[in-house]
Amino acid sequence: MTVVESIDPRTGQTVEVVAPETTGDDVARVCAAAADAAPALEALGRTGRARMLRLMADALEEDRETLVALTDRETALGAPRLGGELTRTTFQLRFFADVLDDGGYLEVTIDHAGATPMGPRPDLRRMLRPLGPVAVFGASNFPFAFSVSGGDTASALAAGCPVVVKAHESHPASSARQLAALRRGAEAAGAPAATVDAVFGRDAGVALVDDPHVDAVGFTGSVAGGRALHDRASLRPRPIPFYGELGALNALTVTPAAARERAVAIGEGLAASFTLGVGQFCTKPGLAFVPAGPDGDAVVAALAGRVRETAAAVMLNARTREGFASGVDALRGAAGVRVLVGPPVDPAAAAVAPVLLEADAGQVTEPMLEECFGPVLVVARYASSDELLAALAAVGPALTATVQTGDDDELAAPLLTHLTARAGRVVWNGYPTGVAVSWAMHHGGPYPATTAPLHTSVGAASIRRWLRPVSFQDVPSELLPAELRDEATDLPRRVDGRLVLGTPPAR
Amino acid sequence: MTVVESIDPRTGQTVEVVAPETTGDDVARVCAAAADAAPALEALGRTGRARMLRLMADALEEDRETLVALTDRETALGAPRLGGELTRTTFQLRFFADVLDDGGYLEVTIDHAGATPMGPRPDLRRMLRPLGPVAVFGASNFPFAFSVSGGDTASALAAGCPVVVKAHESHPASSARQLAALRRGAEAAGAPAATVDAVFGRDAGVALVDDPHVDAVGFTGSVAGGRALHDRASLRPRPIPFYGELGALNALTVTPAAARERAVAIGEGLAASFTLGVGQFCTKPGLAFVPAGPDGDAVVAALAGRVRETAAAVMLNARTREGFASGVDALRGAAGVRVLVGPPVDPAAAAVAPVLLEADAGQVTEPMLEECFGPVLVVARYASSDELLAALAAVGPALTATVQTGDDDELAAPLLTHLTARAGRVVWNGYPTGVAVSWAMHHGGPYPATTAPLHTSVGAASIRRWLRPVSFQDVPSELLPAELRDEATDLPRRVDGRLVLGTPPAR
Repeated sequence: MTVVESIDPRTGQTVEVVAPETTGDDVARVCAAAADAAPALEALGRTGRARMLRLMADALEEDRETLVALTDRETALGAPRLGGELTRTTFQLRFFADVLDDGGYLEVTIDHAGATPMGPRPDLRRMLRPLGPVAVFGASNFPFAFSVSGGDTASALAAGCPVVVKAHESHPASSARQLAALRRGAEAAGAPAATVDAVFGRDAGVALVDDPHVDAVGFTGSVAGGRALHDRASLRPRPIPFYGELGALNALTVTPAAARERAVAIGEGLAASFTLGVGQFCTKPGLAFVPAGPDGDAVVAALAGRVRETAAAVMLNARTREGFASGVDALRGAAGVRVLVGPPVDPAAAAVAPVLLEADAGQVTEPMLEECFGPVLVVARYASSDELLAALAAVGPALTATVQTGDDDELAAPLLTHLTARAGRVVWNGYPTGVAVSWAMHHGGPYPATTAPLHTSVGAASIRRWLRPVSFQDVPSELLPAELRDEATDLPRRVDGRLVLGTPPAR
Repeated sequence: MTVVESIDPRTGQTVEVVAPETTGDDVARVCAAAADAAPALEALGRTGRARMLRLMADALEEDRETLVALTDRETALGAPRLGGELTRTTFQLRFFADVLDDGGYLEVTIDHAGATPMGPRPDLRRMLRPLGPVAVFGASNFPFAFSVSGGDTASALAAGCPVVVKAHESHPASSARQLAALRRGAEAAGAPAATVDAVFGRDAGVALVDDPHVDAVGFTGSVAGGRALHDRASLRPRPIPFYGELGALNALTVTPAAARERAVAIGEGLAASFTLGVGQFCTKPGLAFVPAGPDGDAVVAALAGRVRETAAAVMLNARTREGFASGVDALRGAAGVRVLVGPPVDPAAAAVAPVLLEADAGQVTEPMLEECFGPVLVVARYASSDELLAALAAVGPALTATVQTGDDDELAAPLLTHLTARAGRVVWNGYPTGVAVSWAMHHGGPYPATTAPLHTSVGAASIRRWLRPVSFQDVPSELLPAELRDEATDLPRRVDGRLVLGTPPAR
């Protein structure tokens, strides 16, 4: 029997065997149980599920010390970062409870019967309802926030969809322990045991995408792996939505005015951003356009200085480290690339040092246009606005696009127009690596940033992925879902074409 | 050169040659022009595009007489029906102008900068923006409402997406004439000429799905054709959303109480529904569950009587008629099927008579569970509630599910629960064949009803298919899209988590 091992990336040693890999039969049983649990989870209602999410957050908080220590041992991300990530994760669960309390996500729409130019129209009432069991693929780089207890799970449970997580190989012990906390929260809320479960092993992940009981997939990971699963989900006898967040270069542009005004701040900020979490962020900037000439030189000098001071650090696992090493090799070998900071990566060493490379903007080619996961940044120096815009035109879509501008910057408007068409989030005079959990966040983007450009995996709107509309035509009021009845005034509704605010009960 | 011929289905004769089939090079040129037109169409803004949609409706109305006559000659649907459908189509264009005026579809969401448990949060502003050029596959059975000037086109143009229609082979002359009207409307509104265009021929349709400039596809048609194009869109180097409305059985259930209370009305209403438009509706009921016994017999007697009175009528084209003939043959040959009304279909005759078949609910099997496009209905007689629910469990998802109930009907609640999980629209004491254009309509459903269960092809929400979110982080107000500025109070917004109504300017 193949087993799932918990490995310490600092030593490369197996610390414990967490579980056997989930067999195909067990995946089928878990998914069937999730489907059976769906009606009861839906029947909990918005109030019941909001309570469940808060109880899940409580259960995670109660286990904080052990969860952080265990997860650090499996990921080497460090207790401070992981403590912050767990805070974000429990905040996120509670945030979705607030989304449920608000109720606007249901898009309740009521058209009373009436006359139209085509004749009488029946009474029509539309709302969103849960899609069914959801498969969530945890990511390696955010072992809480994009893993078992992360955003996909929180938003799917909020929607009323049971979740089956495919635990990431890189932190199986943390996955199992998070799952236990979530299940304690579900139990305390009176939700079915199968509200949330997990499977282990790559084959189990593939079986999950194929399973007839699974109605949608949330995925965060590599382009290669994500694309293969996307295609598989699309070609099923019954295709299902596949929400894959894959790769992003997240280019950043420093205008001449910005370089003139705050070269040192930008250089230092950029260094901090691309080395944060050992560069293991989906929003890590991988390419920075900096003007040629003295102002740009000052940006690069500050950047290089800060990079040289940044200590080597342990990456998530051997596979990630090997991918980083080969990616850096390819970048170093690309025509026109100059190495500013960083020796060749030693694939045998646990810790890697950040790498800073430089090229002329006219020479930006593959592999500089592809994401290299880890602490590496290519600085592309441009001699003119025309050269900058030509180089940007070759940069593909991404989760983010960042601009550093100066006062009265003539490049600001054209850059914004160009970047808005190609990114999910445009960041102004900041850095892309922070992703707030909020109502207005969009974490997504055109392919290859994601496989589903209409959707986000972070923020309130991410619940939309797990819901489908149903219209009720002339259904008697007493049979309607509570939210669709005329007297349900506690949530926002569109009634006869006009939006009406909800009057939430005092809590 | 292969040409596109306009054929009169009443005679089977070619009346005129409309156009050459569009070559691959021409498809590429048309799509590139659409992409070039996108910024100007977006720049028209909500007000400009609302005006354009109204001018397009005006242009169609001005050509009403010729459009209806020409389309009747190509479809045999009759002037009264086509006049009504054109009214619906121009209403729909104006409806989307209203959706633009409202502005809620943009989902404007503003989170001002503030503190969070994870530290300071930047200013974040999210809205939806146009996806890019959209390919629309016109359907044969609604030559206006689901074709060149139909819902996919109206909603995509409203969103700000240029449209390239793949004209249906069954009404090419009508398609060309509708296109001309739409283009007059676009020109009058100051929109680019390439705002809307069309291509002709099956190969051109495939090239459209493959074209790198196309960002999404709207399709209404058969399961086989739609699924093939869905898979093709999903497997492109850059996959794109494919909104396919395919096939639906649209089962209808008559409870014992309903049969007892109004057998004749239900029988007559059901006959009218399944023969409407020669049964060529995507919402045509194809299977009706009717109780065994005298009350059910009375339903069937009224139904059969009305079907016998219904004249034979000409179907849309030879291909549709052949499909109907072979579908009816398969149904007649299925085990346990009894023919109530209808001789075998003569594939050589232009007109077809409606066909009414009967079976026991315990014997409902393929092909009774598949859509047969055209005027045929299978009545399944059930002996008990258990037998009814068991038979319904074998019925797949559909665009609609209809129930005819009686007073204090104990079957009402369980049927509603069962059907809500499997249909896009639940119709109570009515018939599924009318699809209102309104805010609360949902015209969609789980596969195979559609390939995109989260989306609708009719109603205000259908605009959502052509939009993707972008978040703006700390972007200065003067650079933001107008709708995202603090002072834009003319549309609904969610500000710091609270929904705020718009105060539209007086018009």
